[in-house]
Amino acid sequence: MQEGENFMNPVLLRKKLQQFLLEDIGSHDVTSEAIFTATETGTAIFYAKEAGVLAGTDIIQMTYELIDPTVEVKLFKTDRQYIEPSEKIAMVSGPIRAILMGERVVLNLLQRMSGIATTTKQAVINLKSHQTKLCDTRKTTPGLRIFEKYAVTCGGGFNHRNGLYDGVMIKDNHIAASGSITKAIQKVRNQLGPMVKIEVEIETVEQVLEAVEAKCDIIMLDNRTPSEIKTLLQYIPDAILTEASGGITMENLADYGRTGVDYISLGFLTHSTSALDISLYIEE
Amino acid sequence: MQEGENFMNPVLLRKKLQQFLLEDIGSHDVTSEAIFTATETGTAIFYAKEAGVLAGTDIIQMTYELIDPTVEVKLFKTDRQYIEPSEKIAMVSGPIRAILMGERVVLNLLQRMSGIATTTKQAVINLKSHQTKLCDTRKTTPGLRIFEKYAVTCGGGFNHRNGLYDGVMIKDNHIAASGSITKAIQKVRNQLGPMVKIEVEIETVEQVLEAVEAKCDIIMLDNRTPSEIKTLLQYIPDAILTEASGGITMENLADYGRTGVDYISLGFLTHSTSALDISLYIEE
Amino acid sequence: MQEGENFMNPVLLRKKLQQFLLEDIGSHDVTSEAIFTATETGTAIFYAKEAGVLAGTDIIQMTYELIDPTVEVKLFKTDRQYIEPSEKIAMVSGPIRAILMGERVVLNLLQRMSGIATTTKQAVINLKSHQTKLCDTRKTTPGLRIFEKYAVTCGGGFNHRNGLYDGVMIKDNHIAASGSITKAIQKVRNQLGPMVKIEVEIETVEQVLEAVEAKCDIIMLDNRTPSEIKTLLQYIPDAILTEASGGITMENLADYGRTGVDYISLGFLTHSTSALDISLYIEE
Amino acid sequence: MQEGENFMNPVLLRKKLQQFLLEDIGSHDVTSEAIFTATETGTAIFYAKEAGVLAGTDIIQMTYELIDPTVEVKLFKTDRQYIEPSEKIAMVSGPIRAILMGERVVLNLLQRMSGIATTTKQAVINLKSHQTKLCDTRKTTPGLRIFEKYAVTCGGGFNHRNGLYDGVMIKDNHIAASGSITKAIQKVRNQLGPMVKIEVEIETVEQVLEAVEAKCDIIMLDNRTPSEIKTLLQYIPDAILTEASGGITMENLADYGRTGVDYISLGFLTHSTSALDISLYIEE
Amino acid sequence: MQEGENFMNPVLLRKKLQQFLLEDIGSHDVTSEAIFTATETGTAIFYAKEAGVLAGTDIIQMTYELIDPTVEVKLFKTDRQYIEPSEKIAMVSGPIRAILMGERVVLNLLQRMSGIATTTKQAVINLKSHQTKLCDTRKTTPGLRIFEKYAVTCGGGFNHRNGLYDGVMIKDNHIAASGSITKAIQKVRNQLGPMVKIEVEIETVEQVLEAVEAKCDIIMLDNRTPSEIKTLLQYIPDAILTEASGGITMENLADYGRTGVDYISLGFLTHSTSALDISLYIEE
Amino acid sequence: MQEGENFMNPVLLRKKLQQFLLEDIGSHDVTSEAIFTATETGTAIFYAKEAGVLAGTDIIQMTYELIDPTVEVKLFKTDRQYIEPSEKIAMVSGPIRAILMGERVVLNLLQRMSGIATTTKQAVINLKSHQTKLCDTRKTTPGLRIFEKYAVTCGGGFNHRNGLYDGVMIKDNHIAASGSITKAIQKVRNQLGPMVKIEVEIETVEQVLEAVEAKCDIIMLDNRTPSEIKTLLQYIPDAILTEASGGITMENLADYGRTGVDYISLGFLTHSTSALDISLYIEE
Repeated sequence: MQEGENFMNPVLLRKKLQQFLLEDIGSHDVTSEAIFTATETGTAIFYAKEAGVLAGTDIIQMTYELIDPTVEVKLFKTDRQYIEPSEKIAMVSGPIRAILMGERVVLNLLQRMSGIATTTKQAVINLKSHQTKLCDTRKTTPGLRIFEKYAVTCGGGFNHRNGLYDGVMIKDNHIAASGSITKAIQKVRNQLGPMVKIEVEIETVEQVLEAVEAKCDIIMLDNRTPSEIKTLLQYIPDAILTEASGGITMENLADYGRTGVDYISLGFLTHSTSALDISLYIEE
Repeated sequence: MQEGENFMNPVLLRKKLQQFLLEDIGSHDVTSEAIFTATETGTAIFYAKEAGVLAGTDIIQMTYELIDPTVEVKLFKTDRQYIEPSEKIAMVSGPIRAILMGERVVLNLLQRMSGIATTTKQAVINLKSHQTKLCDTRKTTPGLRIFEKYAVTCGGGFNHRNGLYDGVMIKDNHIAASGSITKAIQKVRNQLGPMVKIEVEIETVEQVLEAVEAKCDIIMLDNRTPSEIKTLLQYIPDAILTEASGGITMENLADYGRTGVDYISLGFLTHSTSALDISLYIEE
Repeated sequence: MQEGENFMNPVLLRKKLQQFLLEDIGSHDVTSEAIFTATETGTAIFYAKEAGVLAGTDIIQMTYELIDPTVEVKLFKTDRQYIEPSEKIAMVSGPIRAILMGERVVLNLLQRMSGIATTTKQAVINLKSHQTKLCDTRKTTPGLRIFEKYAVTCGGGFNHRNGLYDGVMIKDNHIAASGSITKAIQKVRNQLGPMVKIEVEIETVEQVLEAVEAKCDIIMLDNRTPSEIKTLLQYIPDAILTEASGGITMENLADYGRTGVDYISLGFLTHSTSALDISLYIEE
Repeated sequence: MQEGENFMNPVLLRKKLQQFLLEDIGSHDVTSEAIFTATETGTAIFYAKEAGVLAGTDIIQMTYELIDPTVEVKLFKTDRQYIEPSEKIAMVSGPIRAILMGERVVLNLLQRMSGIATTTKQAVINLKSHQTKLCDTRKTTPGLRIFEKYAVTCGGGFNHRNGLYDGVMIKDNHIAASGSITKAIQKVRNQLGPMVKIEVEIETVEQVLEAVEAKCDIIMLDNRTPSEIKTLLQYIPDAILTEASGGITMENLADYGRTGVDYISLGFLTHSTSALDISLYIEE
Repeated sequence: MQEGENFMNPVLLRKKLQQFLLEDIGSHDVTSEAIFTATETGTAIFYAKEAGVLAGTDIIQMTYELIDPTVEVKLFKTDRQYIEPSEKIAMVSGPIRAILMGERVVLNLLQRMSGIATTTKQAVINLKSHQTKLCDTRKTTPGLRIFEKYAVTCGGGFNHRNGLYDGVMIKDNHIAASGSITKAIQKVRNQLGPMVKIEVEIETVEQVLEAVEAKCDIIMLDNRTPSEIKTLLQYIPDAILTEASGGITMENLADYGRTGVDYISLGFLTHSTSALDISLYIEE
Repeated sequence: MQEGENFMNPVLLRKKLQQFLLEDIGSHDVTSEAIFTATETGTAIFYAKEAGVLAGTDIIQMTYELIDPTVEVKLFKTDRQYIEPSEKIAMVSGPIRAILMGERVVLNLLQRMSGIATTTKQAVINLKSHQTKLCDTRKTTPGLRIFEKYAVTCGGGFNHRNGLYDGVMIKDNHIAASGSITKAIQKVRNQLGPMVKIEVEIETVEQVLEAVEAKCDIIMLDNRTPSEIKTLLQYIPDAILTEASGGITMENLADYGRTGVDYISLGFLTHSTSALDISLYIEE
């Protein structure tokens, strides 16, 4: 990895992979144990069957360490690389039983993460803008947030808040309950420490003006057309970040990119992405 | 639920939901705690924004019990029902803080599961066959297998084996290592108990004949065209189940259905499905 | 291990052993810490004090890796071997404190598993039949199913279903609730995927005939005498497996074996077995 | 429960039962879900099929609370009671699916614990002594120590130390490493707090005299005949407790009881006990 | 609780309390089980033995629910209140065994949290400034961060970042590795999403000027005297928050407060605080 | 470590450290990942900034193994040693990202444990008695009991009971419920096994006489002045241990020591101790 490249906490990764292996292997592999002896070894190749952006290669090494530390893993590709069909991603050598026990968990994660990275990269390309950045949302698969948010960065995207605990997002119902945007921001600011940012979801010029006046950190322009966004952005000073969200698709991304908004957040990067086809080939 | 309707182990469900809530809420909800008092109550509606087949409603009740047992949940729809845009799925009443803390986890699961159920139902429709059943694979999201396999049944599909532990699947590499299909089946049969089925993945007529002779329980016809399948099925007696897999899409499903194969397994039901759009509306 | 020999999922094994070590060691070993320094090393031998069939040797290596990876383990015997009193099973070398911390957990498991393997082997011998196989039940010690089911295979037995999730067992109450065996099987078949077998528990000829007609996969002849079983077996075609269960003891096993039933399931293999006496000897 | 009656930590109990239910139920109950609707209710009776001492009834209530809080449990018997064949232990009413999901875990624990309690009670009877008490060892089933040690008290036995952390047991190898019993006790005493007792395992008169001189709290007479024990006891003052261990069986217990030793510890209470036959009957 | 008052995620709280109860109770309470019957009930009062600010009252209810849901808890005081010696905090009624099993865990948490809240409140008083806010650090007790950070807010303090994952803190070694403050900030900014703030630790005017130019969000003035801070603050525009840290004590807090810095972070609030004396009194 | 030196169960230690690392690192280190590449290595020194007694050095090695096994740890000091300001404790070499990810957890534990060890050592010095020993209480930080009790021994103190499960402590309410000290001890003794000690908390001569008569193992003299203790000790035979508790401070410890009581237990050792200042320095 180069500097400036995200990674996943290895302690959390190991804990999650252990859970996933238990789910798939259960008590044992009833097929392999009948076919292979404990000492029969072999070599297998993880390879791409579809072109895309790779994400999650650390998982291969760590999964096999959990199953059998004697399995050797050699990586041919690294995360964030573009891979072509039939290109080799990694080679694993060791007991065949171990190789097969890890196969499905590795593939399911690698395919899903690379699918997200590939979709994100496509979205970045469609965006056609160096000024606007893409980011994810909290619409991730439960239990997989660390994997999916990391995969978004592999595709060139950025991470929005991790959860309810590390960023304030003031929405309709918070504003309604507080009486006004100003009051909602004031309430939040009164109790926040120095490291948490405040984002406000707005829809009209009046709301933008109020949010600007109340000095929030980010303004989310929710479910607005590109032209509405352009208008609203005129009222927002440079010191406040802007984010567009809602109704944005692969097709209209470039229109939103042209508005000059700072960030565009896309739920579909994580909730509606197809897996990238990756497979394991046992060498004979 | 009616008889003959799948359900998810409530003990496992509760454990998983606890993990998912910890992931999203973390230490606390920094927005809501500033805006709402602990005793402020409200009512919110989970509703459909898109038409589809519902799956996962048990999750709503169980999630809120884990956060705050005083939240009341009323269900308007049940799993397996077809829902139209803007139809109400459930109403939750109680402390607003609790309602908002559970919102994202419930939605992420409900959307993903209903997405799978909807896709499955669409596949069943496209299949146009009462004789052939659709089933899932092990290509599920790690950690979510129980949710996704259940969702497939909500859409009218069936479950293939749960993992490596409860069904034998003899593939290329097992056959190569054993010397022949016959030997592979023999090895497996020698050590299996009475309750595990043996499935063999085959591609040619010779392989079919050998698998039939060896009396496996299921024959998977892997990556065959509909016409190849028709041919191969002629060699398989009724007592052996048949399954088609590989290269099957929404578009060519009917062609495969017309072959009369017993099961068609579809990985995309779980690895490449879009979420169904469901949302939460806080009543004022 | 040879091919065709069961094993236990190493990821699950490690998780279980960690729990067991916490139970026995707690905060620390108050005796050893006072007597031995951290660097004092020694060698100890696990050896048999009673003749029997060995099961669980993988546990020795894995337990000591969890306590202290510098402990070296050398195995003299393998699972499924018959061991005589005073024969050496394994030698462990390393820090004495570590050796003693793992002693009790290793012995408790090894003794219990070898006890089960020995009892199973004895039952196989008593059975005097190559045609009939012995299998276990769900009457295992909670939390130890993976260990006990594996031990049964070390003694020459076979595994029945793992739990409620991977095999259908239709009993009295299911039949009563459904109206008939036929209806019960129909209900189950309507929702099962291709990989799950259906077993029906029956007591009379009428029930057998109905179950055969409904094409279940296995018929369990419950609490029948050997002669009743012989009679009932006449009505069951070869394609349906048969299982005898209930009231079968070490003494009458041969009588049941002579009936020609396919499987005999024995709860006592796991719920009422004596431990095999194995001990640890610290070399001076 | 009366005063002076042991109980199990309910927080630990709940955690263990959750693990056990996950092991047996897995993703779901494939039989019941096909036969019963979610709302179909019934009543079932846990009853004895064999006479013995009951242990573990708290488990029934707690297990069903974890599965479905609407299940009602009514106890007819309490722990420590003697039960006769066909006597009712408890009645459970509620959704049939829930009743069946909990059945096996409850029975496996209740049978095992009642088996231990019954064996312990029989040993107490065989002992024919009011002066000598029976106690357990660390030879318990891994993961079940809390259940098995509690069951021993239900049969009239007492608990030896819980694990390596709460009692000093000086054995051969500790003595050899220290140079003498005196030095071993001194080392241990130098670092122990006020609440931990020191037990020394001895075999000869010389060792007894040394242990007495060094003022240990308990002397274990290891693998001695009754007459050897009588001799050795003469050298031990009242202030030091005595324990006999090793080679003691149901048959020779009374001989050991007549020696007047304070405690007799029996490994077989927990490592080689038969389950007590208890069953569940679904009322029609 | 009022609006604008922090709380702790109840799902996480329950998980933590379960762990703490297992640590203290273990298998059972050997004293209480001998003295009290299971049905003996009583009432007990948690009361202050020392004046201070209360924090952690939610823990009382939740702890007893985990032990025995029949225990009733009535709160007389709420978090953030000032309590005087002998004032009643809460009354618990129910089985004595349950009351005593929860006593120590509740007290240990309540005392520690109230100790932190009291110290924080004292620091706020000593600070004598409405402009400057106090905040905590990551120097919390491992495993208790959620409790300790919450307690700081009960005393009138604010929370700095939760961990390494939700706030950037650029220190000496990051600057050295990057070449300059400017480059370090640039690297970080290149990969951060919109919701994470960047704080830089600086010591000199040159560093301040560079950090201001690079537009970081917060500048931490590390180990500076009050007069140095006053000087440095002149170079920092209002849009950048300022924080003083290092060498600040209860005694010199007012001096730091007079500098007009925005935040003062104090490690001793959580790493070196005395518990507030709180006790439980069983009513006779 | 020398013989006679406590240690912490490594299996429990690893489990706890994993939890603590997850708490602090979360998904990843957002600062380091931007500044350092995955392969950038460095060396860092843990060193003292304050004089005191060191405790917890095993944690350094184990923490880094959990993060990245390639990190090398070299210890310069061992637990129980007195360290001077600026003395080096340990050197860690390896990937900088890994070093920084472990820094805070290691420091928070090392500082807290060394603070406890230092305070304990100071108390031992103030005590000025070779006859009287200091011990801890159950007033430890929830979740950290193993660390804090170990730290007390590093400072020359001793451990009182671990929890409710391994020592009987008869207090006011137990006596009141039983009718008398005699009856309370009798009840407890009736059900205890041989390895558990009985301590009684008393305040008056009458109570002492009764406790002595009932032959408890330890008498705790609760909240007595040194002169009261001297008087009470006259009534207690040597065979019964004595413990003073309540109202004892660093200042009056010597007065209590002069009474000749066997143990003095001090809650403040664990509930109100300041951390010892230890820091990490990254070498350039």
